Amino acid sequence: MYNTKAYAAASATSPLSLTQIGRRAPTEHDVQMEILFCGICHSDVHSVRNEWSNFMSTTYPIVPGHEIVGRVTQVGSAVTKYKPGDLAAIGCMVDSDGICPNCKAGFEQFCSNMILTYNSPDKHLGGVTYGGYSDNIVVDERFALRVPDNLDLAGVAPLLCAGITTYSPLRHWGVTQGKKVGVVGLGGLGHMGVKFAHAFGADVVVFTTSPNKKEDALRLGADEVVVSRNADEMQQHAGSFDFILDTVSAKHDINAYLNLLRPDGNVTLVGAPPNPLEIPAFSLIMGRRSLSGSIIGGIAETQEMLDFCGEHNITADVEVIPIQKVNEAYERLLNSDVKYRFVIDMASLKTE
Amino acid sequence: MYNTKAYAAASATSPLSLTQIGRRAPTEHDVQMEILFCGICHSDVHSVRNEWSNFMSTTYPIVPGHEIVGRVTQVGSAVTKYKPGDLAAIGCMVDSDGICPNCKAGFEQFCSNMILTYNSPDKHLGGVTYGGYSDNIVVDERFALRVPDNLDLAGVAPLLCAGITTYSPLRHWGVTQGKKVGVVGLGGLGHMGVKFAHAFGADVVVFTTSPNKKEDALRLGADEVVVSRNADEMQQHAGSFDFILDTVSAKHDINAYLNLLRPDGNVTLVGAPPNPLEIPAFSLIMGRRSLSGSIIGGIAETQEMLDFCGEHNITADVEVIPIQKVNEAYERLLNSDVKYRFVIDMASLKTE
Repeated sequence: MYNTKAYAAASATSPLSLTQIGRRAPTEHDVQMEILFCGICHSDVHSVRNEWSNFMSTTYPIVPGHEIVGRVTQVGSAVTKYKPGDLAAIGCMVDSDGICPNCKAGFEQFCSNMILTYNSPDKHLGGVTYGGYSDNIVVDERFALRVPDNLDLAGVAPLLCAGITTYSPLRHWGVTQGKKVGVVGLGGLGHMGVKFAHAFGADVVVFTTSPNKKEDALRLGADEVVVSRNADEMQQHAGSFDFILDTVSAKHDINAYLNLLRPDGNVTLVGAPPNPLEIPAFSLIMGRRSLSGSIIGGIAETQEMLDFCGEHNITADVEVIPIQKVNEAYERLLNSDVKYRFVIDMASLKTE
Repeated sequence: MYNTKAYAAASATSPLSLTQIGRRAPTEHDVQMEILFCGICHSDVHSVRNEWSNFMSTTYPIVPGHEIVGRVTQVGSAVTKYKPGDLAAIGCMVDSDGICPNCKAGFEQFCSNMILTYNSPDKHLGGVTYGGYSDNIVVDERFALRVPDNLDLAGVAPLLCAGITTYSPLRHWGVTQGKKVGVVGLGGLGHMGVKFAHAFGADVVVFTTSPNKKEDALRLGADEVVVSRNADEMQQHAGSFDFILDTVSAKHDINAYLNLLRPDGNVTLVGAPPNPLEIPAFSLIMGRRSLSGSIIGGIAETQEMLDFCGEHNITADVEVIPIQKVNEAYERLLNSDVKYRFVIDMASLKTE
């Protein structure tokens, strides 16, 4: 074990601040990485503030961060995929049992023994896992990902959560050329959903409550923008969508989107509104429509997504900040004051 | 046009009683049938009492009935599929435009110009279509179905709605041998769901609020019965189902069934509870679960279902009544006092 710098919160009401944490010395299957960039995900804020306590209580101190891009500094004796100097990345997961049917099918995200990158039991050191707001990290090579060398590294970081969270459902529900696809909300997740749906060749419609986002939505790849508060605009699209990706985690009317689906259409949620959704059964029964949810993706699919981004030159639109501004960034994130993802330049931690 | 006997309701508060209605003389593509049996569907009660007025208002007089089995008495000059003396059946639909993408894909039930067997605009005679509580009926041969000759005809009638409504989603969501399948509710729809899921080779679990239905559920083909009010029994099945068919139209906790799904599992509603369902987003997001609805099936699939029933000797469990007891049967149906479907022996109408 060795000590390294990190930003941690000591309680649900504490700001993030500099601390020292322990990392394990790399075992034979481990990769040690110097962290170059780490994205700020809305989940980081929820976890730091223990807002998901019903679902997954936070253990303090917490070091958040699961959109990690870095450079390999050391590898264990059995590691075959990486060597020192390679670029590598880590997303939301750092371990799973590897033997259950879900793991064998490539769905580590469904493994009941899956270990999250932060705030999950750490079987090596005890306590909980610590995330990417840190100088470096050690991970089993199975959960390290290769990074295409042609991409801007700050823009790669959000691919590890916002990217795979949108790529996976668009792929799973068959979004391709000729499909009409909606993306609800244009934030960290939504802007990636637009980029991917466009890259897959779909006809992409963005739904937003903010008319002033129209120009940017078109720039990102949307073919059309609908202001969701405008009932007439919504009605013009009734019964026409193959698939709608709903990225909004605030309370909103999901039923309005179900009504825009054609027969056999699907609305998939990747945001989690706080209160139960109110869904009339007839909205599903008429036209055999479906409402689904989706969460990240498996490791193989995450690698596929990164490779796809390399081939199509896709990265997130980011605002890079030093770690000293992370608490301010959290407040701005809650006000949707970012286009479209904050990413911490971890070089800033070296100066502390 | 000619007149024929039928049972009709004159208003939302009137009982059904004998009347005369007009039927069109068969055109060149039409089949005329003497009706032998007609099932009583819960939709008949809703429609007669105008309880779905928000969705589809009832025009009076109404002649309900869309589970129709009969014998062909006359065919138009262009009819190729039927000749006088053949058995034939009619379900919930009697026409569609035949040219839209839904019709071309065999999904007449999704056609925006689809005509229901009763209470839909009648393009031949004006007014609305009249259903199967009647001596005879005339229908385009595209919407007549062949009836296997080895089955009890009274037990065939409910296949035309309760049968296809359960067969179609079980097929669509891939219920086969090795799948664990739940059926919620053991009524007219549920008992057919159990028979089909069992015939498809699935491991079938029935969920019921009535412990006294256990023996009958096992007889119908269930492998196990869970009393849904027993939280411990429910918890034992958490995360284990591939597919759950929910046939209950009373208010109930759908989320309890979402939690029983394994990753990528699906709950499909074929009953329509009156109030919006309350669905926590996390129940869908965790494990990429889906909630869907389904309504009857297309004509080709309805024929496939009838052929399957012929091969596997499947019919509904029915209580046959004379039409003079139809109003009493409605009251008993609302009290779930039928195993599992009332079917009217239409010979009883001849004596009036």
